[in-house]
Amino acid sequence: MSRGTLYGVGVGPGDPELVTQKAISILNRERIIYAPRARGIEDSLALKIVERHIRNIETKVIEIIDYPLTTNSDEKRDFWKTLAGGLIGYLHNDENVVYLTLGDPSVYSTYAYLVRALRELDGDVDISTIPGISSYSLAACLVNQPLAEGDEDCTICSPAAGLDYLSEILDNRKNIVIMKIGRRMGEIIDLIREKGLLTHAAFVARAGLKEERVETDLSRLEQTDTETGNLSVILIRKGIV
Amino acid sequence: MSRGTLYGVGVGPGDPELVTQKAISILNRERIIYAPRARGIEDSLALKIVERHIRNIETKVIEIIDYPLTTNSDEKRDFWKTLAGGLIGYLHNDENVVYLTLGDPSVYSTYAYLVRALRELDGDVDISTIPGISSYSLAACLVNQPLAEGDEDCTICSPAAGLDYLSEILDNRKNIVIMKIGRRMGEIIDLIREKGLLTHAAFVARAGLKEERVETDLSRLEQTDTETGNLSVILIRKGIV
Repeated sequence: MSRGTLYGVGVGPGDPELVTQKAISILNRERIIYAPRARGIEDSLALKIVERHIRNIETKVIEIIDYPLTTNSDEKRDFWKTLAGGLIGYLHNDENVVYLTLGDPSVYSTYAYLVRALRELDGDVDISTIPGISSYSLAACLVNQPLAEGDEDCTICSPAAGLDYLSEILDNRKNIVIMKIGRRMGEIIDLIREKGLLTHAAFVARAGLKEERVETDLSRLEQTDTETGNLSVILIRKGIV
Repeated sequence: MSRGTLYGVGVGPGDPELVTQKAISILNRERIIYAPRARGIEDSLALKIVERHIRNIETKVIEIIDYPLTTNSDEKRDFWKTLAGGLIGYLHNDENVVYLTLGDPSVYSTYAYLVRALRELDGDVDISTIPGISSYSLAACLVNQPLAEGDEDCTICSPAAGLDYLSEILDNRKNIVIMKIGRRMGEIIDLIREKGLLTHAAFVARAGLKEERVETDLSRLEQTDTETGNLSVILIRKGIV
């Protein structure tokens, strides 16, 4: 069967200038573009980041994807299966498809779920993944502090495995990036304070977007609304005060 | 005193298409470009990656930097101090300077040493760091395997802290990226074999360059020359066989 290729394209953290040449070439060459949209948001942020780079955007087929609100894993699996089923129709019809992902498709991206669902439908599907600048990489630049240098290592983690697990990482690792903070912001700040690490931490929200916020004093985050943790990253570097 | 800005620009792992728009704009706007060159290599790889994107390259002042061969830390410090001393001359003369770094300037880049040396000379120096695609991020795309998803974390490390330390990371972490492999390639492969992790590992060398090599069977690396570990990355993901 003749087949198209799925291009999983990382669009970077938000600044349209942080998109790669390769992402731009693929977006201009291909016709079908899938763009995910966050819950309750009108536009697809990933699409907004790249749209200025796309010539003749009116000739493209743009499929906006709304992620399900459910936390039920069966319903989630059904969602990805249905999405993959529609997308594979294009591939089997010899059309290439671009799937946009915020940041880097290899780091906490739902793109991994799409790839898995596609492979369950067709083990031979052609997939080409294009890396993007991750939000933590931009955050490190914004605070002018390396993620790792010399003999250091760096652990990228999220609170998804639970706060006890995050606590263990904070105790045992020296350079830490916490992503996927969301509504757990308050608990995470409390945990960092308990460990005496507030002065070793930096907070960056919406890196690369116009509402970008950089805080090197985390005590300023103690009274914050529930939106503060969205699209945010905390960098910890124990060697630095 | 009027001052220029140092732009530390990540140029990505090697493919000129993986350079960001922002890096290209800065390179076209600014006149002074510092480009590091590896020991014993004729050209600067970082410069080769971006040169096709630079208009009127003949109008630029390009300073090729040869890193010192020494492992003596005093001599290294002197090298960075001398380099920073020359560079700060431009900044204090109101000229901006671009300093190219392979991959991402925040991950095991000597750029961190330059920044430190500059700040020792002038605490107020203006520095703007532009993230680049790291080699491990491209490597993950090439093997179509996420660095972290769901409740996983990912540890980026190097053998610089010693093989015992690397051994501890291999025992205790689930997703691991090993960078800066170089001549320790053989020892690292032995360690991964001892831990029974060969089938969970992937090797990518010179990602994004024309000599790119991707191995998902690390036993193929047992007889290799000493150059194999250069510009290479090993990805380990214990959950995947």
